[in-house]
Amino acid sequence: MEITTSMIKELRQATGAGVLDCKKALETSGGDPEKAKAYLQEKGLAAAAKKADRAAEEGLIEAYVHAGGRVGALIELNCETDFVARTEAFKELAHDLAMQVVATNPLCLAPADIPPGVLEEEKSKYQTQARDMGKPERIIDRIVEGKLQKYYQEVCLLEQPFIKDDDLTVQDIITQMIAKSGENIVVRRFVRFELGG
Amino acid sequence: MEITTSMIKELRQATGAGVLDCKKALETSGGDPEKAKAYLQEKGLAAAAKKADRAAEEGLIEAYVHAGGRVGALIELNCETDFVARTEAFKELAHDLAMQVVATNPLCLAPADIPPGVLEEEKSKYQTQARDMGKPERIIDRIVEGKLQKYYQEVCLLEQPFIKDDDLTVQDIITQMIAKSGENIVVRRFVRFELGG
Repeated sequence: MEITTSMIKELRQATGAGVLDCKKALETSGGDPEKAKAYLQEKGLAAAAKKADRAAEEGLIEAYVHAGGRVGALIELNCETDFVARTEAFKELAHDLAMQVVATNPLCLAPADIPPGVLEEEKSKYQTQARDMGKPERIIDRIVEGKLQKYYQEVCLLEQPFIKDDDLTVQDIITQMIAKSGENIVVRRFVRFELGG
Repeated sequence: MEITTSMIKELRQATGAGVLDCKKALETSGGDPEKAKAYLQEKGLAAAAKKADRAAEEGLIEAYVHAGGRVGALIELNCETDFVARTEAFKELAHDLAMQVVATNPLCLAPADIPPGVLEEEKSKYQTQARDMGKPERIIDRIVEGKLQKYYQEVCLLEQPFIKDDDLTVQDIITQMIAKSGENIVVRRFVRFELGG
């Protein structure tokens, strides 16, 4: 039996395993998708049932420009299939996130994306502040760590309180959508323009 | 008489001269704006009546996302006053340019913005092509120059044919708007996202 790319694609979406592994699994199982799945699970290759490892290459580009045209944002929100991308819930999430970027002006997506120089500067600022306030040396690291967490919540989109429900972070909202849709969902990139900014 | 920053700003907008020159002109002329203008003209410092040298810091952020949400663009179009930014003609221009970016995927604004490595690669590609076709050495430079002009028209937003009237370039359309509004108008920046791109 011939193994077609669409068979591979389906198996890949169902298991999150790599292309070559899916091809081999289908060949080994004579093209039977259920046997191929079992093969991948046996080999531990479908471990990527962890959705976060699955390729998210569909989705939406969404823009939001605030009234008056002085500030706007463009965002790419990815999911795994065009089917999910076309749902109202996904569209609403993309729109809300573009609005969030306009409203809160995040520096980057996640703490790991903060430029090292900027991070060092923040750290040393917090250290100096703590020392100037006469805090004992042994607790300064803890104080700095606490302030950094607050800083992340300010400048990292995924760590920010969600503008429509500040009990949840943006990542919480995305995680809810992952649970609801059954697909991996990620913010791939965003950009924000402010007039003369 | 005290020289205020708003006096300097006004003189600057009227003449396009630098901040320090405007300040000195106002001091020399005892704060009289007409005398200050004459002073700048005398010194050749108001030569910047050329609109292209005038500060354009107002304008609009505009977005366009193509139906289906697979590609979108964000653009900053600057003019000199909020008054011009709010006109229908300016809004339409901003919208058309965002659409142009989505439709034609420009690499940059102008030839000077093409990364040197990319430009060198294009040049040497055209040279090789011309030699492979047996063109005489003495005309190769001219052939390469001609091909480069075509390349600019493809990848530089301002050199591209305007999507709504391909007899004109984008820069022609902007120049028309400069003439119509009497203000300097510039595309400051743009970005284009394509799904998975």
